[in-house]
Amino acid sequence: MNKESKILIVGLGMIGASYAEKLHGSGYYVGGISARESTVAKALQEKIIDCGTINVTKEFVGQFDIVVFAVYPKLFINWIAQHQDCFRSGALITDVTGVKCSIVYSIQKMLRSDVEFIAAHPMAGRERSGIDNRCSKVFEGANYIVTPTEKNSQEAIDTACELGRILGFGRISVISPEEHDEMIAFLSQLTHCIAVSLMCCKDSAHLVDYTGDSFRDLTRIANINENMWPELFALNKTQLLNQMNLFEKEFVRLKEAIATDDIETVKQMMITSTERRKLFNK
Amino acid sequence: MNKESKILIVGLGMIGASYAEKLHGSGYYVGGISARESTVAKALQEKIIDCGTINVTKEFVGQFDIVVFAVYPKLFINWIAQHQDCFRSGALITDVTGVKCSIVYSIQKMLRSDVEFIAAHPMAGRERSGIDNRCSKVFEGANYIVTPTEKNSQEAIDTACELGRILGFGRISVISPEEHDEMIAFLSQLTHCIAVSLMCCKDSAHLVDYTGDSFRDLTRIANINENMWPELFALNKTQLLNQMNLFEKEFVRLKEAIATDDIETVKQMMITSTERRKLFNK
Repeated sequence: MNKESKILIVGLGMIGASYAEKLHGSGYYVGGISARESTVAKALQEKIIDCGTINVTKEFVGQFDIVVFAVYPKLFINWIAQHQDCFRSGALITDVTGVKCSIVYSIQKMLRSDVEFIAAHPMAGRERSGIDNRCSKVFEGANYIVTPTEKNSQEAIDTACELGRILGFGRISVISPEEHDEMIAFLSQLTHCIAVSLMCCKDSAHLVDYTGDSFRDLTRIANINENMWPELFALNKTQLLNQMNLFEKEFVRLKEAIATDDIETVKQMMITSTERRKLFNK
Repeated sequence: MNKESKILIVGLGMIGASYAEKLHGSGYYVGGISARESTVAKALQEKIIDCGTINVTKEFVGQFDIVVFAVYPKLFINWIAQHQDCFRSGALITDVTGVKCSIVYSIQKMLRSDVEFIAAHPMAGRERSGIDNRCSKVFEGANYIVTPTEKNSQEAIDTACELGRILGFGRISVISPEEHDEMIAFLSQLTHCIAVSLMCCKDSAHLVDYTGDSFRDLTRIANINENMWPELFALNKTQLLNQMNLFEKEFVRLKEAIATDDIETVKQMMITSTERRKLFNK
């Protein structure tokens, strides 16, 4: 990757548009593809891309050295199946998908042998979607995770890491797709499941005036994109169910300790909890 | 309650010392009782009380018009049982206890007829305890809840509300002990149980570098005082177990929807969750 590398962003939603803006602002030649004409027009008008289209053609896509997919997972797979002949030979493909095993292996399997796919996950986002909510500031201090397989070259891994640095991420890591999916199931998907369940289990409108920080903290992420997340859950189902079962078992253990006045267990869980949480203080 | 009212704080921990400092700073004559000599000495030295002692005597306690108990619930009940002869006739007793039904009725039942107990709950605190962590700023914008019973006079309710205003609370409410306990079981105790279970269900030390805001938000309150909370849980057991069951049922419903690829249910829960959460945006 050098200053001459031309970068195409497929999907100009919150993440895609933030990538485009940051890369364009860093001096790269950036192209954009969106399903909506109005999004392309806005991206051009607000000068976050140099060129853009709604039409996927060999002429357009073939200009680019690096192609970043910032679309929903299933759309990503369909796009590759349908349009992969459009890539320039030697192009490097990467993505922003929040689940890895179910994506990486199928894409790598179906992809042309003269094009390489290196998967990456920028662990950043906002509660609002779309180009108007782009904000590359969310990358600052956030994690950027590259998840190579045996099929990937060191060069591709290095380029993906460099992209993360240019985008301004705080920490760049390289782990396997499997480690990624277990981690994301626990840290992100399980926490969203908890927040949604807490919000759904009781109509709490009458309690809003009494709400302190605890409830607000636990439900901030209960404001959730219902189009994207069910797809991500389904694509990481086994890992997510594992983590949900771990949590449920522990929650029931605490409940039973409270029900049977087993103060010692309650206390011991609190000591463990406090001790472990210390590591996560920023 | 007027500027001449003399106020005694029993228990100079984080909350008690914050009360003392704020009331003393507002011009009231404030006394303090603590189990520790060093705490009394510090409170005197740092001028947050006018007088203090570790000895509970009629001579000392009898000076005060208002007595605020800022001690653990069981200690509060024991104190009243042991020392209530020390109160001046006509004294008003109040508290800061985080559970109400199990406290209010027993105290009111055992209390001398010439002394009145009006229960209150300041919904504010810090993760650290003790006089050194006092901070009356935490009261700003927070809820102060007065929970009268049929035994309480309007005058006592008014005085409790006024105390909340003097302390700087953002919102003063009057609700029944029963409403209070259901609300606190859901908004505070259940959320702490969730955070503790999430922290305990997996040794997550190896994940610390990948942790984003979601997990940090959900576990902030997992840093918990293991001496105070089990007591509060036990004293609100029925309500807490009700709320834990509500949450568990919904969590299992979501888990089963994910397990059976019932995307429609997952989506519907997310829509409900997002819709309900809007009310809680600050």
